[in-house]
Amino acid sequence: MLMTPGPTEIPKKVRKAMGRKIQNPDIEEEFIDFYLMLEDKLKKVYGTRKDMLILGGEGILGLEASVASMIEKGDKVLCISNGIFGDGFADFVKMYGGEPHILSAPYDEVLDMEGIEKAVENDDFKMATMIHCETPTGVLNKLDEILELLKSRNIITVVDAVSSLGGVPVPTKDMDICIGGSQKCFSSPPGLTTVSVSEDAWSVILDGEQRSFYTHLAPWKKMWFEEKYFPYTHLVSNLYALNAALELLIEEGMENVFQRHIDCAESCRSRGQEIGLELYPSEVNLSSPTVTAFKLEGRAKEVQKKMMLENDIVLATGLGDLENDILRIGHMGNNARSEKVEKTMDALQKCI
Amino acid sequence: MLMTPGPTEIPKKVRKAMGRKIQNPDIEEEFIDFYLMLEDKLKKVYGTRKDMLILGGEGILGLEASVASMIEKGDKVLCISNGIFGDGFADFVKMYGGEPHILSAPYDEVLDMEGIEKAVENDDFKMATMIHCETPTGVLNKLDEILELLKSRNIITVVDAVSSLGGVPVPTKDMDICIGGSQKCFSSPPGLTTVSVSEDAWSVILDGEQRSFYTHLAPWKKMWFEEKYFPYTHLVSNLYALNAALELLIEEGMENVFQRHIDCAESCRSRGQEIGLELYPSEVNLSSPTVTAFKLEGRAKEVQKKMMLENDIVLATGLGDLENDILRIGHMGNNARSEKVEKTMDALQKCI
Repeated sequence: MLMTPGPTEIPKKVRKAMGRKIQNPDIEEEFIDFYLMLEDKLKKVYGTRKDMLILGGEGILGLEASVASMIEKGDKVLCISNGIFGDGFADFVKMYGGEPHILSAPYDEVLDMEGIEKAVENDDFKMATMIHCETPTGVLNKLDEILELLKSRNIITVVDAVSSLGGVPVPTKDMDICIGGSQKCFSSPPGLTTVSVSEDAWSVILDGEQRSFYTHLAPWKKMWFEEKYFPYTHLVSNLYALNAALELLIEEGMENVFQRHIDCAESCRSRGQEIGLELYPSEVNLSSPTVTAFKLEGRAKEVQKKMMLENDIVLATGLGDLENDILRIGHMGNNARSEKVEKTMDALQKCI
Repeated sequence: MLMTPGPTEIPKKVRKAMGRKIQNPDIEEEFIDFYLMLEDKLKKVYGTRKDMLILGGEGILGLEASVASMIEKGDKVLCISNGIFGDGFADFVKMYGGEPHILSAPYDEVLDMEGIEKAVENDDFKMATMIHCETPTGVLNKLDEILELLKSRNIITVVDAVSSLGGVPVPTKDMDICIGGSQKCFSSPPGLTTVSVSEDAWSVILDGEQRSFYTHLAPWKKMWFEEKYFPYTHLVSNLYALNAALELLIEEGMENVFQRHIDCAESCRSRGQEIGLELYPSEVNLSSPTVTAFKLEGRAKEVQKKMMLENDIVLATGLGDLENDILRIGHMGNNARSEKVEKTMDALQKCI
C-alpha cells in the first residue's frame, strides 16, 4: 500500500482509462474535443476560469516553466518560504538570470507576513513565488492576505499548489500562476503538471524573449490557444488517466472531497497522538489535510523500512536536514480513505 | 486504426503494463532494480553500452536537452539538415546562445557530404546535429561516414533517431548523443524520451554552467548515476509501459524486427505504385523502412479525411510546405504488421 504524499495510489478506473487505445492528438478532432472537456474539468477542480495548461512532464516542470517564461536578467523576485520547495524557487530564479530575495521563516512556522510587507515597500519586485502546501513538512500556508497584498502592488504571483490542489480549497483568485501535479491529490500517474495562467501572467509571458521551448509557456498560447494544435505530441495516455481521475473527484463533489481529507487528517493525527507520536510542526493548525508528519528523531528511516518490510506499507521520511527525523503519511487523493489511514496507523502502532 | 508515424498503436500487453499499480520511484528499492533492468533493455535495443537516460517528457525534450546541456554563448554548431527537424535544431542552438551553421540539402535529397567536409575544414565547431530519419518526409539519412568524419575532428555529435530507433539499425558507435522517443517504433505511449550519452558528451555537459533543470542532463549524472535517486518523480506508469514494449522487441529479436519493417515498407510501396501513387522522395533508396510518403499534390488532407471517415484509418499528411502535398503511412513499431499495411492499402486504393 502506497501511503506517500505523492505519488498516491491510482484508482482502478483511472488505471483502466490509461490503458485504453490511444488517438493521435495532432490529427483526430475527437481528441481535441476530449482535451477541451478535460480543461473544463480541471477548471472546476481548481475553482477558476483562467486559462489552463497541461504540460507533459512532472510537477517540477510547472515550477521551472513559470520562472523560465517570465524572468529576464536582473528581474527581482520575492521568494516567500518556510520550506525546501519555497527555498528551491530561488534556484530557478537564479538559473534564469533573476535576482531572488528569499524571505524565509522556520520550517515549522507560518510565513513572515510582516517581512513581506516590508519587502514589497522597500523594493520593486516583478514576481513573488510561494508554496501552498510544503509537502516535505506538510505545512499548509494561508495565502489570501499575502496574495491580495502582492496583487495590490502589481506583483505577478506564482503558487506551487502541487500537493494541495484537489484535496484542499486553493485560493486561486489572486494567483497569476497556480501549479498542480497529476500524481498528488488527483491520484493519477506522474507525468503531467497543470498550470493556470491569468491575463496578467500571459502579458508578461508573451512580452519577453523566448529562451527555451519545453520549459516555456508561450508556445501553448501561440499553438494551442490560437491554433488548436499542441507544441509536441501530447501525453495521450496520461491525459486519459487524468480525465478519469478528475471525473471521480467531480462526481464525488469537491466539498465532499475536501471533507474526506479533513476527516482522514484528523483521524491520522489523533491516532498518532494516542500512540505517543508528536506532530511536526507541533502546532496542528499549520498542517495540511493532505499530509501528516510525525517527529521520529533519528529513526524515521528505520521505521519506514520496518513498515515496508513487515506491513507492505510505503511511507515517506523527511527531506534535507529532516530526512531521518520525520515520518510522513500522505492521506491525499485516493489515499485519503479512512480504512487506509486506519490500516496504516494500526501497523505503525505495532511498529513503534 | 492508427497508422501514423507516431504515436503508433500500442500492443495490449504494453497497455496492460501501463495500468498496473504503481510503486514510489523514490523510496522502493524494487523500483530501482526494475529501472536498472529497463536501462539494460534500452541499451540492447540501441545496440550501445553508453549511459542511458530516460527523461520524463516527449521526444522534443531530448532534442532541447542535448543543446541546453552543452551549448554556451558563442558556441558554433553545424546543423546538418535535409528536413524540418534538421532545420529545427538550429532554433534550439540560437535559443541557448549558440551560433548555428545550417547546412541544408533539399528535403528529398541526401545530406550534403561535400558541404560537411568543407564546413569542418573551414570552421571550428563544438557540436554537430543531425536527424537519422526525418519523419515529415520519411527520409532515412546514412550517417556512418559523416559521424566518423565529425568524431575525427573531435566534434560532439547529436543525433535525433526518434523515428528510427527500434525499427531500423542505428549506427550509434560515433554518436555522442542519440535520442529516441517512446511513441514511435517502441510503440509505447508518448511521454518518455531516451538519450544515450557518451563519455565525451558527459565531459561537456558537466563542464558548463547549468542554466536549466528539466532540460538539462547534468542532474541525471549527479543524482541518478552517482546517488541512485531521480531528479523528479519519474513517470512510473510510462516506464512500466516502455519496459513491456522493449521486452516484446527483444523477445522477437532485433534482426527480425528490422526485417519486419523492411517487408512492410516494401509491400506498402509496391502496393502504392500499383495503384498509381508516386513516392516522395522519388528515389526509394532514400526512404526509411519505418515510414512511407506518397505524393498527393494539393489533396493529401482530403484523402486523409476520407480515410478517417470512411475507413477509420488515421494517416498523416506532410508538415510545413508539404502539408497538403504528401500523405504519410507510419509502418513502424506495432504498425509494421503486414495485415495492417494490407488493410491500409486496400482502403487507400478504394479512396483514390
